Amino acid sequence: MTAEISRIEAFADGVFAIAITLLILDIKIPPAGSGSLSRELLSQWPSYLSFLISFAFIGIMWINHHRLFTHIARADDMLLILNLLLLLGVIVVPFPTAVLATHLGEPDQRAALILYNATYVFIAVVFNLLWRYASSGKRRLLANDVDSASVQKISRQYMLGPVFYLVCLGLSWLSAPASLTLSFALACFFALPPHVVASKRK
Amino acid sequence: MTAEISRIEAFADGVFAIAITLLILDIKIPPAGSGSLSRELLSQWPSYLSFLISFAFIGIMWINHHRLFTHIARADDMLLILNLLLLLGVIVVPFPTAVLATHLGEPDQRAALILYNATYVFIAVVFNLLWRYASSGKRRLLANDVDSASVQKISRQYMLGPVFYLVCLGLSWLSAPASLTLSFALACFFALPPHVVASKRK
Amino acid sequence: MTAEISRIEAFADGVFAIAITLLILDIKIPPAGSGSLSRELLSQWPSYLSFLISFAFIGIMWINHHRLFTHIARADDMLLILNLLLLLGVIVVPFPTAVLATHLGEPDQRAALILYNATYVFIAVVFNLLWRYASSGKRRLLANDVDSASVQKISRQYMLGPVFYLVCLGLSWLSAPASLTLSFALACFFALPPHVVASKRK
Amino acid sequence: MTAEISRIEAFADGVFAIAITLLILDIKIPPAGSGSLSRELLSQWPSYLSFLISFAFIGIMWINHHRLFTHIARADDMLLILNLLLLLGVIVVPFPTAVLATHLGEPDQRAALILYNATYVFIAVVFNLLWRYASSGKRRLLANDVDSASVQKISRQYMLGPVFYLVCLGLSWLSAPASLTLSFALACFFALPPHVVASKRK
Repeated sequence: MTAEISRIEAFADGVFAIAITLLILDIKIPPAGSGSLSRELLSQWPSYLSFLISFAFIGIMWINHHRLFTHIARADDMLLILNLLLLLGVIVVPFPTAVLATHLGEPDQRAALILYNATYVFIAVVFNLLWRYASSGKRRLLANDVDSASVQKISRQYMLGPVFYLVCLGLSWLSAPASLTLSFALACFFALPPHVVASKRK
Repeated sequence: MTAEISRIEAFADGVFAIAITLLILDIKIPPAGSGSLSRELLSQWPSYLSFLISFAFIGIMWINHHRLFTHIARADDMLLILNLLLLLGVIVVPFPTAVLATHLGEPDQRAALILYNATYVFIAVVFNLLWRYASSGKRRLLANDVDSASVQKISRQYMLGPVFYLVCLGLSWLSAPASLTLSFALACFFALPPHVVASKRK
Repeated sequence: MTAEISRIEAFADGVFAIAITLLILDIKIPPAGSGSLSRELLSQWPSYLSFLISFAFIGIMWINHHRLFTHIARADDMLLILNLLLLLGVIVVPFPTAVLATHLGEPDQRAALILYNATYVFIAVVFNLLWRYASSGKRRLLANDVDSASVQKISRQYMLGPVFYLVCLGLSWLSAPASLTLSFALACFFALPPHVVASKRK
Repeated sequence: MTAEISRIEAFADGVFAIAITLLILDIKIPPAGSGSLSRELLSQWPSYLSFLISFAFIGIMWINHHRLFTHIARADDMLLILNLLLLLGVIVVPFPTAVLATHLGEPDQRAALILYNATYVFIAVVFNLLWRYASSGKRRLLANDVDSASVQKISRQYMLGPVFYLVCLGLSWLSAPASLTLSFALACFFALPPHVVASKRK
C-alpha cells in the first residue's frame, strides 16, 4: 500500500515540478534592437509579479500536498480521482498566470484577475475535499499514528483556504493591488503553520 | 527485480506528468488590446474542451497504468518495448489535442477529430497488448498473489477500450458532439471499475 | 550508496522523460483556414519522421541507461560528470530534430542531417566512455554479482554504437534516406540484445 | 523522516531536470529558405554558449544539491522554504539565459550579462543559507555520521560561491568574455571538490 501512495506522490511531484517550472516560459524575452534592454526588462514587472505569486502558490501547495500525504497511508479510487482534480487545478495555473501577466495594468485587468483568483478558489476547494475525504469515514485512509486533534487542526486551517481565496476573488472587483497582496500573504500563511506542524511532530 | 519495475514506473510517471502538463501550453493567451478579454476567453471554448478531454484521458490512463503495474512484478525486454510504445501514444496526445482545439467548429473539424480519436484507438490497442503480454504465457511477469479471476476481469474490461474508441472514431464522420461526449464518458468509465478493484483488494 | 545511484537514476529519468516529451512540441499545428487540414497534416511528414527516429533513439537510450545502471552499484565524481555529459547529449536532441524536420526535403537538408547524426555520434561516444569508466579499473563501481563475460559482451555491443553512427554521419553526404534508415535500424538493434540480456539474467 | 527527505529530493530532481531541459527550447530553429543553413547555425553561437554555461551551472548545482542532501537527514519547515527559494533561482535560469543568448554581441549585452550573473549570485547566496541553516544550531538536521571537519570543509568551499559570482557580476561592466569564462570555470571548480569528497567518503 505504501508503494501505491509513493507512486501517487511521484506523479504529483512530477506535475507540481513541471507546472512550477513552465511558469518561466511565460516571461517574454525582449528582442535585440528594441530599445534599452534594461527599460524593456523593467517594463515587464506584471510578468515578474504574477510569476512570483504563482510560484509561491504552487510551491506552497506542494509543501501542503507533501504534509497531507505524510498522514495518508492508503489510497482508493476516489482519492485518486480527487488527487487528479487537484492536479488539474495545478496544471491550469500557468494559463491564468500568463493571462494576468499580459493584462495587468491594461483596461481588461479585472477579467484577468477574476480568472486568476477563480483558479485558486477551485484548487483550495478541491484540496479541502481531498483532505475531508481522506480523513473522514472512520479515517480509514489515514496512517494509524495520526491523532484526532492533529486531524482537526489541519481541517480547521485548510477550511480557511476557500474562504480567503473567495475574498481575493471579491477584491478583484475593488482593487487589483489588494487582491494580489492578499493572495501572496495567503501563500505565506499556508507555508508556516507552526502549531499544526508542532503538534504533528510530537 | 522490484527495482527494475520501479524505474519503469518512474520513467512512465515522468512522461505522463509532462504530457499532461504540456496540454496547458496549447491554450492561447489573448493579447492585450484585442477587444473584450472575457469575450476572447469565452470564444476559446474548443481549446478548453479538448484540454479537458485529453486531461481526463491521460489522467485516467495513468491511473490504469498504475493499476496494471501493481500486478506486474517482473520486466523483460518485450515489456520495455511495449511500455515505450504506450508512452509514444501518450507523448503524442498534445499534438492532436492542439489540432482539435484549432479546428473544432471550423470547416475541417472532421479531419481533426479523426486524428484525435485515432490516437486514442492506438493507445487503447497498445494498452491491451501490454496487458496481454504481461498476463499471458503462464503469466510469468505477474506478481504471484494475482489470481486468475482478477486477471480475466481486467482483460475483459480493457478489451472494451479499442472497441469503444473505434466507435468514437466512427462517430467522427457523423457527429462531433457525439464523438467527444462518448470519449469523455469512456474516460470516466475507465476511472471507476469498482468490481475489478474490489476483487483485487480482497 | 544505493541511495546515491537511485538519485542519479531519478534525475536521469526526469531528463530522459522531458526530452522525449518535448519532441512533440516541434510538430506544428496547421492554422485554421489554411486549406485542407488532411493535406496540411500529410505534408508535415518530415516532422513525423524525425520525431519517430528521435523518439526511438531517446527511448532506447533510456532502456540502455537503465540496463547499465542495474550493473553499477557505486558512484564517484567522475561518473556524475560523465552522466551529466550524456544528459547534455539527450537534452540537445530536440534541437537537431527540429532542424531536420524543418529542412528535410529542402535544399539544405545535408547540413541538417549532419547536425542530427553528429549529435548521435556524440551521445554514443559518451555512452561508451561512461560504461568504460564504470567497468574498468578493477571494476570498482560495478555490483559484485556482475561477471566479466557479461561486462565484455556489453562492452562489445556498445562499441558498435559510435562506429555505426559515424557511418550514418558519412551517409549524410550520400543519401538522406539511407542515413535515416540506418539510424532507425540502429535504434532497433540496441533495443533487442537477447544474448546480453540472457547472460545477464542467468 | 528519510521518506520526507526523499520526497524533497524527488521534487527538486524534477525541477532541476525540467529547468535544465527547457534550456534547449531557447535555441532558435533557422526557418527553411533563409539562406545557408550551416551559416545560420554558426551565427547562433551566443545561444550555444549561454546554453552550455547554464547547462553546466544547473548540472553542477544538481550535483551539489545531491551532495548536500546526502548529509541532511531531517527536514523542517524552514528547510522546505529555503529549498523552495533555491528552486526559484533554478527555475528562473532559462530566462536570463535566453536574454543573454539574444543580446550577446548586441549593444545591450551588458544589461543581459548583469541579469545573468545576478541570478547566479542569488542562487549561490541561497545555497549557502540552506547549508548554513541545515548545518548550524547543533546541526540537528544533519545525519549523525557527518563529522565536523567535513561540515567545515563544505562550508568553506560553498562560501566562495557568492564571492566569485559577485566577481563575475562585477566583470560584466568590464569584459563579457572574462565574465563568462570565469562563470564557466566556477562551474568546473564546484564540480570537482576532491578533498571534500575524499574526506566525506572515509
